[in-house]
Amino acid sequence: MSDLHAKLAARLGPKGWTADQELIAPHLAEQRGRLVGESPFLAMPASTEEVGAAVRLCAEAGVAITPQGGNTGLVGGQIPQGEILLSLKRMNRIRAVDPVDDSLIAEAGVALVRVQEAATEVDRLFPLSLGSQGSATIGGLLSTNAGGVHVIRYGMMRDLTLGIEAVLPDGSVLSSLSSLRKNNTGYDLKQLFIGAEGTLGIITAATLKLFPRPAAHVTAVAAVKDPAAALDLLHRAKAAGPLAAFELMNRTAIAVTVKNIPGARDPLAGDYVCLIEFEGEEAPLRAAMESLLERAMADGLVADAAIALSEAQAKAFWFVREEMGPGHRPEGRQVSCDISVPVSRVPDFIAQAPAAAERLCPGVRIVAFGHVGDGNIHFTMLQPAGPPMEAFPREALQAAAHDCAVKLGGSISAEHGVGRFRREELPRFKSPEALALMRTLKAALDPKRIMNPRVLI
Amino acid sequence: MSDLHAKLAARLGPKGWTADQELIAPHLAEQRGRLVGESPFLAMPASTEEVGAAVRLCAEAGVAITPQGGNTGLVGGQIPQGEILLSLKRMNRIRAVDPVDDSLIAEAGVALVRVQEAATEVDRLFPLSLGSQGSATIGGLLSTNAGGVHVIRYGMMRDLTLGIEAVLPDGSVLSSLSSLRKNNTGYDLKQLFIGAEGTLGIITAATLKLFPRPAAHVTAVAAVKDPAAALDLLHRAKAAGPLAAFELMNRTAIAVTVKNIPGARDPLAGDYVCLIEFEGEEAPLRAAMESLLERAMADGLVADAAIALSEAQAKAFWFVREEMGPGHRPEGRQVSCDISVPVSRVPDFIAQAPAAAERLCPGVRIVAFGHVGDGNIHFTMLQPAGPPMEAFPREALQAAAHDCAVKLGGSISAEHGVGRFRREELPRFKSPEALALMRTLKAALDPKRIMNPRVLI
Repeated sequence: MSDLHAKLAARLGPKGWTADQELIAPHLAEQRGRLVGESPFLAMPASTEEVGAAVRLCAEAGVAITPQGGNTGLVGGQIPQGEILLSLKRMNRIRAVDPVDDSLIAEAGVALVRVQEAATEVDRLFPLSLGSQGSATIGGLLSTNAGGVHVIRYGMMRDLTLGIEAVLPDGSVLSSLSSLRKNNTGYDLKQLFIGAEGTLGIITAATLKLFPRPAAHVTAVAAVKDPAAALDLLHRAKAAGPLAAFELMNRTAIAVTVKNIPGARDPLAGDYVCLIEFEGEEAPLRAAMESLLERAMADGLVADAAIALSEAQAKAFWFVREEMGPGHRPEGRQVSCDISVPVSRVPDFIAQAPAAAERLCPGVRIVAFGHVGDGNIHFTMLQPAGPPMEAFPREALQAAAHDCAVKLGGSISAEHGVGRFRREELPRFKSPEALALMRTLKAALDPKRIMNPRVLI
Repeated sequence: MSDLHAKLAARLGPKGWTADQELIAPHLAEQRGRLVGESPFLAMPASTEEVGAAVRLCAEAGVAITPQGGNTGLVGGQIPQGEILLSLKRMNRIRAVDPVDDSLIAEAGVALVRVQEAATEVDRLFPLSLGSQGSATIGGLLSTNAGGVHVIRYGMMRDLTLGIEAVLPDGSVLSSLSSLRKNNTGYDLKQLFIGAEGTLGIITAATLKLFPRPAAHVTAVAAVKDPAAALDLLHRAKAAGPLAAFELMNRTAIAVTVKNIPGARDPLAGDYVCLIEFEGEEAPLRAAMESLLERAMADGLVADAAIALSEAQAKAFWFVREEMGPGHRPEGRQVSCDISVPVSRVPDFIAQAPAAAERLCPGVRIVAFGHVGDGNIHFTMLQPAGPPMEAFPREALQAAAHDCAVKLGGSISAEHGVGRFRREELPRFKSPEALALMRTLKAALDPKRIMNPRVLI
């Protein structure tokens, strides 16, 4: 055992580390099998002090660290490639819940679902909601500035955070867990660590915002002829009521999900289906939704629509949407993008990107769905139906979709981050000034480059 | 004329500069007369390129710059003390308004009221609203992360900003004016400049979020016996409807404003009066407000209440609240604080701070009002009624109020910033780690310390 490993072991205690590769292995596998990492040592500190001590020891030895939460990241940022792996899983306490301040303090290793439950227990809402919420942890969600289906109403993790505690690359602790709603006394330091993918420090805890629990949800589906009509409907919906979600699904996305996922039902015929949800008082919202959809049908904007009459029906509408990720995976070779464009350019993207893909791979099938209200489309190109395609042009298709998004003023990563998978592409899409400023920050905060050095920048 | 001044004059052209002290003088006076600055040279660039060129020339000469917008700041951050004064007033174009993206691009010198009007013209809302909106400009509002009365629903300037264009301390331009709602490709660089009070660069333009225009407002006043009752009412109001404002005013604040401001009317008898505003569809909101207040009266929480029956009445409720700043100024010697505490600690602050003030200055009168829904209290200590008090203990009173806020986990500047007036106090209230990290950022971005060097840090 190396000198550093011995020092870490002594500081972290018997439960706080392992060098047993069998125990480390599950932490090294990216969930979709796209990357297998390596690490000689897994540190599992149980407190902020222990994280600080571990980071200080690594800094003194000049050895790099990859922090890891629930290992659900989609860009490989949590997978070490020789670095010390530092799991936050044992930092799993909810330190405080305050329904008067509408705030909650959770440690980095707390799973999202536990935060949601703790909020519910005091009759409040923590609104972040996404597929992996059973295992994704607060630290990872903050480090990747996670989004999900309620961003249109509540924002991303950045918007849901009041304060942060983080261990800096020298092992010192920045403690700013205040629940203040307003505090203009200097640089807003928490912003540095949110979305930084562990490259500027390790988030150990956060103060999160809570909200009133909505009395009810009113959920509907509406078929439109194209994405431009969906945008028109989006703006009508924004003006009509408190919009909690506005999702778009194309026909292929629905068809492959219904085919591959038991229990998934086609919500409505049509090339494009919008899923719309209001939240608040039931009776006026139901009236608002009915009026919205009736007018849109009278104006020829919506071909058909249905308002869920029961919670079971609302869940069925959501189920097909939420299963779209797993829903298209059995369809052979494929490549997925998580792009965003200005909301107004969604129709252009959904016209141009499939055309570019078709030129590269005739017969390609396009799965497009997601948070159209935020301009964020999950865009997957599937090989033509049939046996696995040998010559599927994966890289070329991805590059074409990314180019298309960026030409429309968009981004190659709306909510998943950069990690390892998008890092090489970043210089193609960021301005030299932005890249230079990112490097300035990295060098200033982490001069030894020990914080997740293969990630992001 | 110095070599630098000659170079700046040549680059900026005849309309772009002056060294005439008579013309510079109005820019040197803090609006309440608390500070008179000095500057040898006023630069008035008309474009981002000109700002960049001016900053580059200053950087090469090692000469410091103070940027200035509408000169409405309340902490002296915009007043030079020998620095080159760089006014953004000529950068006053609204570059784009896009109601489909719900965004607008405004240059730094555009007054807030013009942004509000531009939004209204396309049937949208820009929700930031504050007393000085006729002259406060977008650049200054961003640099101080301004707040106002609608923060509880829409957030502060930071929350209302999608993108930023800024000139860095070496004169290069960071252009990130995208209207993307989601973009997780690296550090969120705009956050560095928002609330940085011009110490890390000069904001030249911003992409701002627009919102649907609410169909109607329902405005009410409610008298409660103490701040704890106000908090209880706040949480009931948050659960009852889309709350756009929740303000608290104590009796002295109302009394001196009614006395000193022609046209200001006492909205309701009671020691503490809450001003509550919902926004959305009129009929259901009016019903929700009636139900909220009826139940609160039945429960003994609210002693008396009134819902505005006309726009004129709603305006009258707001008028007394908005005139509270000018309303207490004629009352002799006084000292004002802009504190915030966790929302749950507002009652403690309003109990403890006046008691501490009374010990230092028997007979002191307390004006307390503001954004209680955000934990932000504007807290002014007035000398006892009578002729100007010679021995008014200004500094001791302010320090006592600040200490009280910080002991309750609060901040000495909720929304006004640090500037020059609060800079010396900062080390008393920030952790060494936070101060060190702020200094690290300042040194990394502005190694020559030419950007507003007497401000903030």
